[in-house]
Amino acid sequence: MSIHNSLLCGFENSHFSEVPVRRILTDLTIATMEPGGPAYGLVERGAVGVEDGTIAWVAGEGGAPSDWRGVDVEDFSGRLMTPALVDCHTHIVFGGNRAREFEMRLEGATYEEIARAGGGIVSTVAATRALSEDELVDAALPRLDRLIGEGAGTVEIKSGYGLTIEDELKMLRAARRLGELRPVRIRTSYLAAHALPPEYKGRADAYLGEVVLPGMEAATAEGLVHAVDGFCETIAFTPDEMRRVFDKARTLGLPIKLHAEQLSDLGGAKLAASFGALSADHLEYLGEDGVAAMEEAGSVAVLLPGAFYFLREKKLPPVAQLRAAGVPIALATDCNPGSSPMTSLLLAMNMGCTFFRLTPEEALAGVTRNAARALGLADEIGTIEPGKRAEFAIWDVDHPAELAYRIGDNPLHRRIVA
Amino acid sequence: MSIHNSLLCGFENSHFSEVPVRRILTDLTIATMEPGGPAYGLVERGAVGVEDGTIAWVAGEGGAPSDWRGVDVEDFSGRLMTPALVDCHTHIVFGGNRAREFEMRLEGATYEEIARAGGGIVSTVAATRALSEDELVDAALPRLDRLIGEGAGTVEIKSGYGLTIEDELKMLRAARRLGELRPVRIRTSYLAAHALPPEYKGRADAYLGEVVLPGMEAATAEGLVHAVDGFCETIAFTPDEMRRVFDKARTLGLPIKLHAEQLSDLGGAKLAASFGALSADHLEYLGEDGVAAMEEAGSVAVLLPGAFYFLREKKLPPVAQLRAAGVPIALATDCNPGSSPMTSLLLAMNMGCTFFRLTPEEALAGVTRNAARALGLADEIGTIEPGKRAEFAIWDVDHPAELAYRIGDNPLHRRIVA
Ligand SMILES: [Zn+2]
Ligand SMILES: [Zn+2]
Repeated sequence: MSIHNSLLCGFENSHFSEVPVRRILTDLTIATMEPGGPAYGLVERGAVGVEDGTIAWVAGEGGAPSDWRGVDVEDFSGRLMTPALVDCHTHIVFGGNRAREFEMRLEGATYEEIARAGGGIVSTVAATRALSEDELVDAALPRLDRLIGEGAGTVEIKSGYGLTIEDELKMLRAARRLGELRPVRIRTSYLAAHALPPEYKGRADAYLGEVVLPGMEAATAEGLVHAVDGFCETIAFTPDEMRRVFDKARTLGLPIKLHAEQLSDLGGAKLAASFGALSADHLEYLGEDGVAAMEEAGSVAVLLPGAFYFLREKKLPPVAQLRAAGVPIALATDCNPGSSPMTSLLLAMNMGCTFFRLTPEEALAGVTRNAARALGLADEIGTIEPGKRAEFAIWDVDHPAELAYRIGDNPLHRRIVA
Repeated sequence: MSIHNSLLCGFENSHFSEVPVRRILTDLTIATMEPGGPAYGLVERGAVGVEDGTIAWVAGEGGAPSDWRGVDVEDFSGRLMTPALVDCHTHIVFGGNRAREFEMRLEGATYEEIARAGGGIVSTVAATRALSEDELVDAALPRLDRLIGEGAGTVEIKSGYGLTIEDELKMLRAARRLGELRPVRIRTSYLAAHALPPEYKGRADAYLGEVVLPGMEAATAEGLVHAVDGFCETIAFTPDEMRRVFDKARTLGLPIKLHAEQLSDLGGAKLAASFGALSADHLEYLGEDGVAAMEEAGSVAVLLPGAFYFLREKKLPPVAQLRAAGVPIALATDCNPGSSPMTSLLLAMNMGCTFFRLTPEEALAGVTRNAARALGLADEIGTIEPGKRAEFAIWDVDHPAELAYRIGDNPLHRRIVA
């Protein structure tokens, strides 16, 4: 078996052997993304030792442990290695698309005309409800493949276009199936509190009581939920409504996340932080108190430049304040049909630099180390250091800054996942 | 020989046969991009007849001519067909990259510090001069492949980083070589009037007289020039200096183009129009008189949203006025290391819609029909109609608006070029 296959297939030999399966990957510039050292945690002329799918050691030239002599070595000709990328905020499971709505708006149609023509999130909900689990999987696969093709090893996927218990479960099952069909780690977030469906118009409490809360129980019982998410906004749910959702998540032992402060400052991030949120996401309108609360809770700020761009938002998230407070910043595609039909994490990195003035190093940390943390996976993935999973992206570039600098390119040489 | 190969290899059988090589491509939604009819010139359930690399007919269901019975048919299962894309403004032949400069700026370095560290266009000129023709070809190939991979059948490439006669010729030779290495039509523009090289600081007239004009003669004698281009701007060349360049182009019978009104309104577009320019490009600061002059001259307005985005420009090109005047609008990547390191025409389409409020149909016309016109190729390519070359892009989308709507995706199914 070639090293290539053993790596892609998850070192499956280890199940059948008493001898640990060891591999050395060498002649690499390694952006370990370990903080506290040189920029990018860079190791020049480096090598990585992998044992049973876990990183055993990382070393500079000639630094391989002596008891690893004779182990198979693969040479990467000086290429750049980073951790496999992590897209920590997506909605890639959905039916239909909103290209015609995009076109109508550019042709001058009013929001009312678009709504009359069946546009808006309601159209995605209808299209998603109309598809079977299999059809949702088929629709999402090209989007997932695009992310994988740019080096993603982990992708978070949210429900939130079903908005009935059965349709939310269907979305989560489809998301989990994607992880069986492709060599990628899928994390699923339960987002029934995404929008109020038409049949509950004006009855948010009833929707929470009849769908969101019992659906959370059902999804958890089926083992479909890694985290609970919501959309706290004037056009979605109030902080008090979200508190009900988070209280339920707490009783079920589920971590929480929140779409917060995207269009106004309702104090959503502060609320989420009070529940020890993994992350608060969007954050263009986040105020000082929100930054402080996130810092105290250790929540990650997930910035979504694709939505900022597509919605032509002008208000910038408070990057300088987040940086000063030491709040970890992640970047994600927010891939969704209405506000960010984007399937490129590399482009999210470039937009994070261009719009939000992140540095290329912050952008790369945002799709590796900090994105892992936003999913509660900081101990497993996101940096290249002993004990973490052997999940890497190998790039045809000389310097890691090129990953954020190029626009619409994909210099991925190979993705290696355990 | 399969139809697939025959198409990819340019119907080369026709050279050896008395019988015309005919193929039918069917079960297609065809965005012919012919103006004056339905949106996108759309033909539903359409078919195209190709004879010796040329489009013989385009028809709706059952519309194949009766004397084409028995001709080989390939079925495309309802996919979308557009003309092969045309990138009418690139600088993909260059040495080095400017990722480190990008990073320094985001880390807060001043322009002076970047200049001291060897940044700016001067660094690209030095890196380009240092490479051989072969090395320039190697450096440009991944960029060209990325454009081809998104359906481009024609790519314009400018010189302009050599800035000596020999180095400009070297760039143009490298660009032409790219067209031999890949099945793509390359159009080369002579852009020695791109920037004043350090050795001519303060001596623009000497640079024109000793390099730009004699270099134009030499490049033309070697058959390397399809058009002459320049950069008319306070930081580059004045209208009077450009006039000298265009006068020379006229004596050599070469069409002209111009980088104009990108950072200020110097009247460059008007000057270019007075020489019957194929196009004026950038145009953020174009005024009413410039629009009128371009309309009268039949020049194409080539908009470059990648540079607008990367430079964080706020001033929008006068799209409404161009539209009202009937000036054809094209879109291009402007792929270059300093202000638009972008290799995606699809992303240029999305940015054209998002930033400049083009409609998806205008965006698609901008990378097909109008881009062909900006290269003087309106009679050969850019629409799907009888007599034009059989150069197509086949897409895995339902509606042409999706091409501009998706961000960072590439739904190309296959590219077919004669
Ligand atoms: Zn979201
Ligand atoms: Zn240019």
